[in-house]
Amino acid sequence: MKKINLQDKFSLFSEHWTPKILGDLNGQYLKIAKVKGEFVWHDHANEDELFMVIKGQLKIRLKEETVVLNEGEIYIVPKGIEHKPEAKEDCWILLFEPKQTKHTGEVIDDLTVDENEWI
Amino acid sequence: MKKINLQDKFSLFSEHWTPKILGDLNGQYLKIAKVKGEFVWHDHANEDELFMVIKGQLKIRLKEETVVLNEGEIYIVPKGIEHKPEAKEDCWILLFEPKQTKHTGEVIDDLTVDENEWI
Repeated sequence: MKKINLQDKFSLFSEHWTPKILGDLNGQYLKIAKVKGEFVWHDHANEDELFMVIKGQLKIRLKEETVVLNEGEIYIVPKGIEHKPEAKEDCWILLFEPKQTKHTGEVIDDLTVDENEWI
Repeated sequence: MKKINLQDKFSLFSEHWTPKILGDLNGQYLKIAKVKGEFVWHDHANEDELFMVIKGQLKIRLKEETVVLNEGEIYIVPKGIEHKPEAKEDCWILLFEPKQTKHTGEVIDDLTVDENEWI
């Protein structure tokens, strides 16, 4: 494989809430996404999900609290925990999660993407 | 869990080649390490290993080539591939690998750490 340059990869797309796959390791995918606005409440029954902010600010709403992540900050949403990502401005994130993770869990929404594409 | 701030976590230690665990998800560990100098040639028979550079420059020597990673660059060393990380100057890296991954594979070296600690 070749090395992955995050800035180069983020420059290849502009759409929000459509994760792109960068890498495949140990049954997990490394993905990136640009996000802006509000996502939908959902959970993943069997998958923990890691969010890392590369640029901007991401809010992860949980039922009991809201986690605010700035550049260089990471949060792992444990399996089964309902969450709703939001970003006021354009925000770039990195995701780690099992390959079988569904975008919006069992929720179907206009934002739902069934198949992530490689970039 | 609490959010993880990478700069804060890196400020808590200075020693090289001793990965610290930041998070646990889907049977994998998220780790950070400071590296400087030459590590040992080794491989992980069953585990893919992700390296991401947070600060500085990391060289990953492979048998056929050398991959040079700068800040914001990522490389996944596939299972079974011999590799030797090196850094001329202090370099901060993030690692993502299965929990059972051994530090130096089946090689035992003065640098080998048997148990990673949480930070």
